[in-house]
Amino acid sequence: MLSAFSRRLPDWLRHYRRDLFAGDLLAALMTVMLAVPQGLAYAALAGLPPHVGLYASLLPLVAYALLGSSPVLSVGPVALLGLMTASALAPLAAPGSPEYLAAAALLALLSGLMLLLFGLLRLGALSQLLSHPVISGFVSGAAILIIIGQLQALLGIRSDAGAGALMLLDIAGHLHQLAPLTASLGLGALLVLILSRSLLPRLLHRLGLPANRAALLARLMPMLLVVASILLVQSFSLPVAVIGALPGGLPPLGLPAADWPLVRALLLPALMIGLIGFVESISIAQRLASYAPSRVNPDAELRALGAANIASAVSYGMPVAGSFARSIVNAEGGARTPLSGLLGALGLACVLLWFTTLLRALPLAVLAAIIISAASALIDLRTLRRAWRYDRADAYALLGTLGGVLVFGIEAGIAIGIGLSLATLIWHASRPHIAVVGRVPGTEHFRNVQRHEVKTHDNVLCLRIDESLFFGNVRAVEARIMKELKRHPNVRHLVLIMSSVSRIDSTALDMLHQLNSDLRQRDIQLHLAEVKGFVLDQLQQADLLEQLSGEVYLTAFEAEVHLGGK
Amino acid sequence: MLSAFSRRLPDWLRHYRRDLFAGDLLAALMTVMLAVPQGLAYAALAGLPPHVGLYASLLPLVAYALLGSSPVLSVGPVALLGLMTASALAPLAAPGSPEYLAAAALLALLSGLMLLLFGLLRLGALSQLLSHPVISGFVSGAAILIIIGQLQALLGIRSDAGAGALMLLDIAGHLHQLAPLTASLGLGALLVLILSRSLLPRLLHRLGLPANRAALLARLMPMLLVVASILLVQSFSLPVAVIGALPGGLPPLGLPAADWPLVRALLLPALMIGLIGFVESISIAQRLASYAPSRVNPDAELRALGAANIASAVSYGMPVAGSFARSIVNAEGGARTPLSGLLGALGLACVLLWFTTLLRALPLAVLAAIIISAASALIDLRTLRRAWRYDRADAYALLGTLGGVLVFGIEAGIAIGIGLSLATLIWHASRPHIAVVGRVPGTEHFRNVQRHEVKTHDNVLCLRIDESLFFGNVRAVEARIMKELKRHPNVRHLVLIMSSVSRIDSTALDMLHQLNSDLRQRDIQLHLAEVKGFVLDQLQQADLLEQLSGEVYLTAFEAEVHLGGK
Repeated sequence: MLSAFSRRLPDWLRHYRRDLFAGDLLAALMTVMLAVPQGLAYAALAGLPPHVGLYASLLPLVAYALLGSSPVLSVGPVALLGLMTASALAPLAAPGSPEYLAAAALLALLSGLMLLLFGLLRLGALSQLLSHPVISGFVSGAAILIIIGQLQALLGIRSDAGAGALMLLDIAGHLHQLAPLTASLGLGALLVLILSRSLLPRLLHRLGLPANRAALLARLMPMLLVVASILLVQSFSLPVAVIGALPGGLPPLGLPAADWPLVRALLLPALMIGLIGFVESISIAQRLASYAPSRVNPDAELRALGAANIASAVSYGMPVAGSFARSIVNAEGGARTPLSGLLGALGLACVLLWFTTLLRALPLAVLAAIIISAASALIDLRTLRRAWRYDRADAYALLGTLGGVLVFGIEAGIAIGIGLSLATLIWHASRPHIAVVGRVPGTEHFRNVQRHEVKTHDNVLCLRIDESLFFGNVRAVEARIMKELKRHPNVRHLVLIMSSVSRIDSTALDMLHQLNSDLRQRDIQLHLAEVKGFVLDQLQQADLLEQLSGEVYLTAFEAEVHLGGK
Repeated sequence: MLSAFSRRLPDWLRHYRRDLFAGDLLAALMTVMLAVPQGLAYAALAGLPPHVGLYASLLPLVAYALLGSSPVLSVGPVALLGLMTASALAPLAAPGSPEYLAAAALLALLSGLMLLLFGLLRLGALSQLLSHPVISGFVSGAAILIIIGQLQALLGIRSDAGAGALMLLDIAGHLHQLAPLTASLGLGALLVLILSRSLLPRLLHRLGLPANRAALLARLMPMLLVVASILLVQSFSLPVAVIGALPGGLPPLGLPAADWPLVRALLLPALMIGLIGFVESISIAQRLASYAPSRVNPDAELRALGAANIASAVSYGMPVAGSFARSIVNAEGGARTPLSGLLGALGLACVLLWFTTLLRALPLAVLAAIIISAASALIDLRTLRRAWRYDRADAYALLGTLGGVLVFGIEAGIAIGIGLSLATLIWHASRPHIAVVGRVPGTEHFRNVQRHEVKTHDNVLCLRIDESLFFGNVRAVEARIMKELKRHPNVRHLVLIMSSVSRIDSTALDMLHQLNSDLRQRDIQLHLAEVKGFVLDQLQQADLLEQLSGEVYLTAFEAEVHLGGK
């Protein structure tokens, strides 16, 4: 009985080695110390009461620990999804209202269900939907939006201007109204965070700490800031905006209320949040893969992130994904198995049960500083520099996506990014390589007429198509064929050599049909040669082969033997 | 002086043959007869006063005639852009208000400027951004939305429900409130239009008319309906909603008023309208290319459509594109040169100057019938059927786009379509062909170990990559490499044979960097062989070649000679 039960446990738990426990426990403690301030901050970023961020940190950790394929990825609220949540919910309800909270949980639920579905359908390839430069542009743009959005809270200014650049201008115009106390608290905290990223690790290292330990300690600075600022505000009763009373105790459980119009309005944002969260999580898991022996499995990640979002939704949380900062603290802290995630959840439960009252005096300006510091780490100039040097089209796609996010906002930004990913593909595809070929005398080989001394016939034109045919290059291929036919006016037989064509999509099939009938009118026969077996099978299903004015030849040589003499 | 002037005239005008004039004139007259009812109808569809549709038909014809590359394409308001205009302007102003009219003209202006810019940048390849199935799904979905949206006007019912399926339900619930007179007028007109598409051509043909003449006459039925319904309403003073007084005279000229927030809100819709209008126009021009000897040039089309939209904007019009119905009437009517477009503009000017008062009694229900009939011709089941049989992924992309338009509306629908176009590419790309190869004994040729008897070495693994490397397949390639290394545990040298790789994008470059350092840790050297010249140049710009743990070999044979003995 017991052994039947134990056999159903995950591998890592059945074979758990005791010597790993200390590392898992220490990592869990450190992750909790970062998860508390970040959870509060990202909930605020999403327009939600801060405690929602703690709710969304608890159960998702458990769900991911049980299903995820990375032992170090730490799942919970992240800055990017906080911004996307705020952007999705803004038109639907007033921030902080009960409807808004319910909609945030519903968003997580829908997003989770979609990811779970994609995972069950084994659509892990979705993580390749966007190129690195486009993702980098999107994340950098979102980070800049996040920073601009937090300036008000950081400086204690009220602005009513929309978002992005407009808000920046408006804030600049209201700078004289800044609240000195709030601003000095916020800017001071920001300064500490920035210095702790650059100077503190080096300082600690010089004091004798190993470099990675020093960096790890410096990463826990947000918690130190939280404690220090709470003490400061309470000791001197400073008149600054604070987060106020948080509900104590574990999150209540329940399904978010939903009606069809709300679900419909949230479907698309949920899809985007799910995909972006997935793409980011998997890239974090892969960057940290060297900390643990197991390989990251995209399909398992889809299911685990789906479950984590559903877990967040039923505990009145918000959309969640893997957090880079917390995952690296987890990994560096010594986490080697998912037990660290389970212990982290336990730690967060303790915080929720007994320590929430301590947090009430946390100044909002410090939260803003934490958000800004985290967001500024997301701005990625290195990818832009590399892409600019290596592949200009990729650099333009990056800049276009970044600009799209800044000008049109986060959702249109993703659409623009997807469009640009596609556009760069099409751009390159629209210059397919096609060669006029002839036979190398004395052999059965056909080579490019421009590079080799070959034998050709006046009435036969042999074109070798060096890429698969799809909607992105059919027009270019057609134009090239027409150009070559113009150059060879005596041609009566056009032979397309398909040795490199491993796919013909419906758009290309339409083109071949059209080409066949156009050429028939001009009294030119269209032949195919060296068609791969499975491509031929596919063409047989369509009726192209029946309507073809010419023949299908096994080899170009066979075609020449047949047609050359005519 | 005169000859210098004449040399600046377009080719077709300098070499105009008099015998073409009768055809051009007749075609122009017929096009005008269709342009008047369609212009009125599509302006109404866009939420604009009907006369805007006539304004938008006049100058764009002139602009396109001077710059376009198709002598038969007829440019002006079209149903698809009418719907997209309404969707873009709905959140910005009340339909029919002065702000709404100005915004419609601004939309045309922005869209025109973008197309003109794309044309000057020679981005004609943009017409390949979407696959045929995705375009078909988008157009069918939009047509269904258009039809649902016109049911109110057709039946004389008032519905306040949003759009799409909801509106359909609401209308079904209000069916008992339908206005009998309006409904019978509308349904009667619709019946006539449907019959005139299917039965009338056959009937006329049986009465002795040639088939194409019969079809052409049947296509002019909308004008006949307009005249008949006006006579009916006026003779019997029928109490039905009519379009009312239209301003007479030529369109006034001027630039639409604009401020930055409005421009910003319209940029993305303008881009979508421009691209969709361009894609549709070019596909119409290509389908009708057989009517005229000239070839359709995508870059020239971009510039001409851009100019047409700008011309529409400065005459207080709306976004325009090539109309299939009017273009085929134009072509069948005998148009062989752009003169037919210029004569059509002249005809429309006459209508605006002298005949607008006759149109005031035109019932709105008849306009709705004209729109519904035109939209129903856009619903395309044939492409779905073919794609379903030939390439299931394409069929899913079609259905996904169609569903996206119906559920989320027209703009999200395009985004979904672009996403699905990309997704089908990625889907196929994520299964790249990679072969483990070995040397055919006695030769320098390397072939697939699964198909040929070849010689391999225990410590060298040769992989031939049969596709270009880009963000869509890097993960699959990496996974395959890892799998093969696991299968060959004694390998110390991995040779990637790049003979089929004609491009490596930045995402793939990142993967190669990562692979190189991962393998170095495992004490495996990474070598490249048979790298194409221009790919090598590109890799040299990045620092991959310096960091490569192994060598770059000219041929796989050279690599084997070097490494095989070690």
